[in-house]
Amino acid sequence: VVRWEPGTKDRLRATALELFAAQGFEQTTAAVIAQAVGLTERTFFRHFADKREVLFDGQSDYLQSFGAGVAAAPPDASPLDMIASALNAAAGLFSEDRRGYARIRRRIIDANPALAERELHKRSLTAANLAAALRSRGVSEPAATLAAESGATAFGIAFTQWTRDDEARPLAEIIADVLDQLRQLATPVH
Amino acid sequence: VVRWEPGTKDRLRATALELFAAQGFEQTTAAVIAQAVGLTERTFFRHFADKREVLFDGQSDYLQSFGAGVAAAPPDASPLDMIASALNAAAGLFSEDRRGYARIRRRIIDANPALAERELHKRSLTAANLAAALRSRGVSEPAATLAAESGATAFGIAFTQWTRDDEARPLAEIIADVLDQLRQLATPVH
Repeated sequence: VVRWEPGTKDRLRATALELFAAQGFEQTTAAVIAQAVGLTERTFFRHFADKREVLFDGQSDYLQSFGAGVAAAPPDASPLDMIASALNAAAGLFSEDRRGYARIRRRIIDANPALAERELHKRSLTAANLAAALRSRGVSEPAATLAAESGATAFGIAFTQWTRDDEARPLAEIIADVLDQLRQLATPVH
Repeated sequence: VVRWEPGTKDRLRATALELFAAQGFEQTTAAVIAQAVGLTERTFFRHFADKREVLFDGQSDYLQSFGAGVAAAPPDASPLDMIASALNAAAGLFSEDRRGYARIRRRIIDANPALAERELHKRSLTAANLAAALRSRGVSEPAATLAAESGATAFGIAFTQWTRDDEARPLAEIIADVLDQLRQLATPVH
């Protein structure tokens, strides 16, 4: 029987983030993280496939939320309405209590080119998932890819803004602002 | 005095593309390309810094054409109008006589992950350049980045379409179609 302490994964994650931020991602091993929580390396690997997964787990829930949002848009929705529904569904995953974690995570990723590359890959998976969801709602190409790329860009801009130290608005409110800007791109600047 | 044969660079490029396509990019050395044209490896390196440059030279002209297009848009232009002007300016670099080259180039790049990565980097440079040009025309953030990313996506879609074997329309005509689709993203699908 495997002993299962509730909260172990959260404790491992919180400690891993502290250590990544303080001494660097490369320099922090799974063994050191586990030890700092009073656990074995083996316990660490029961919760995370590797230390990078501390920063990138939950990806399938994340991607699915965008698809679910597209599916939930009303029948007469435009591609941009579907994108708005997708981004709001994804925003539902990022409640206020996750903002501190997201801030530290961003700093760790910005400091490490390999992690930044992985984050870019996540962005392209988001766009590909969005495009597939739009096509299944009857949006043809190239409109589906154009809307999906715009959606992934808008979410990235809003999410980065949400993690800024001087930003207090909820993610959904920032997304609404960015989507407004997207809708106004056909309006003259002056 | 260096002997300079007009057309040498074009002959090297044409032969390099044939060899890359026939026997693979990795397997083709600069020496083999030069030899196939009856020249020395040293002559090859007078024209190209390395063999990858055969596929990626002219990048600064390419990037500048987008910026020049943004600058040439009328005073009352919207961000999307500026993007349209940028994409049309870039399309001016790709006349019909370059389509055959572009087709072979695409096949070589699609077959080699490192080259595909480099091509992705070119796309992100295009978006960054477009965003800077838009900001200097008074477009604020995040609108500049949203429009620039849409523009880079639209150009990529149109350019890929232009290189398809069954596509005969000029690049500018394909771009106009893709930009129409971009402008209609706020229109209901059904």
